[in-house]
Amino acid sequence: MKILGIDPGYAIMGFGIIEKKGSSMFPVAFGSLETDKDTPMPGRLKHLYSGLMDVIAEYGPEEVSIEQLYFQNNAKTAIYVGQARGVAVLAAANSGLRIYEYTPMEIKTAVAGYGKADKAQVQSMVKMILGLDKIVKPDDTSDALAAAICHAYSGDVKKAMFLMK
Amino acid sequence: MKILGIDPGYAIMGFGIIEKKGSSMFPVAFGSLETDKDTPMPGRLKHLYSGLMDVIAEYGPEEVSIEQLYFQNNAKTAIYVGQARGVAVLAAANSGLRIYEYTPMEIKTAVAGYGKADKAQVQSMVKMILGLDKIVKPDDTSDALAAAICHAYSGDVKKAMFLMK
Repeated sequence: MKILGIDPGYAIMGFGIIEKKGSSMFPVAFGSLETDKDTPMPGRLKHLYSGLMDVIAEYGPEEVSIEQLYFQNNAKTAIYVGQARGVAVLAAANSGLRIYEYTPMEIKTAVAGYGKADKAQVQSMVKMILGLDKIVKPDDTSDALAAAICHAYSGDVKKAMFLMK
Repeated sequence: MKILGIDPGYAIMGFGIIEKKGSSMFPVAFGSLETDKDTPMPGRLKHLYSGLMDVIAEYGPEEVSIEQLYFQNNAKTAIYVGQARGVAVLAAANSGLRIYEYTPMEIKTAVAGYGKADKAQVQSMVKMILGLDKIVKPDDTSDALAAAICHAYSGDVKKAMFLMK
């Protein structure tokens, strides 16, 4: 089964597709969609949506794993990132995929073994778990793969719990 | 020229279409898209997107006016409302419309004459400006019409300034 992980953002949206076979998992494709800061927001959202639709059409994932967003301080940024997350969720929903979400702590725990793992530890584990030659760049793409790995590690019972509300 | 005003929300998304002819404006259609709180968020976003696409296809507005969102306190709500706003902006962008945004204060100033007008004053002015029989309900629909009226009052120079960044 193919799983698409998404790290939502409006300047850079990371994506990573992995295939889960039994207890093993393999990388299929990963990358990022980037938007120009000088492009008005409607054009940026349109680009992100159509880019994700293309990725979904090309690789045919069945399930999507996306990080829950929490912001402590900056509600304006939260609105912008929320908009980007909205079009990502919409692309998955309009493609008929099942969508699951995990907190950053759940993802870190699944990938690196504990919820307060730092960024470098998570990136290193993503590389190791997927048997890659080097750390995945940009961070957003590595984080998208981490979300996909987190979902792959979850059993079916747990997956039902995390089905996006 | 037809203008679509949108008041973005994930539980209720208000919309209102007005036609501007010279210095006059007339109501064309208005209402709200509502989603069930028991429906998972992907389904709610999908419903809002397809509903707005239907409204745009049926009434053929050329420009869209949407309120800027600011939240002081609750970043989690900001993410949710941001997601709904993202699919609204995407529906307009994917339909090839020009999109403008205004702050709440700009809308209140345009509709009611001053930026700290209360909700009842704005609703009353929306009713009067559009020659309607009664106050528009729900509030979200009245607010969507207020956004459209604000844009109709703006000259072309001002409109260029407010073209969504």
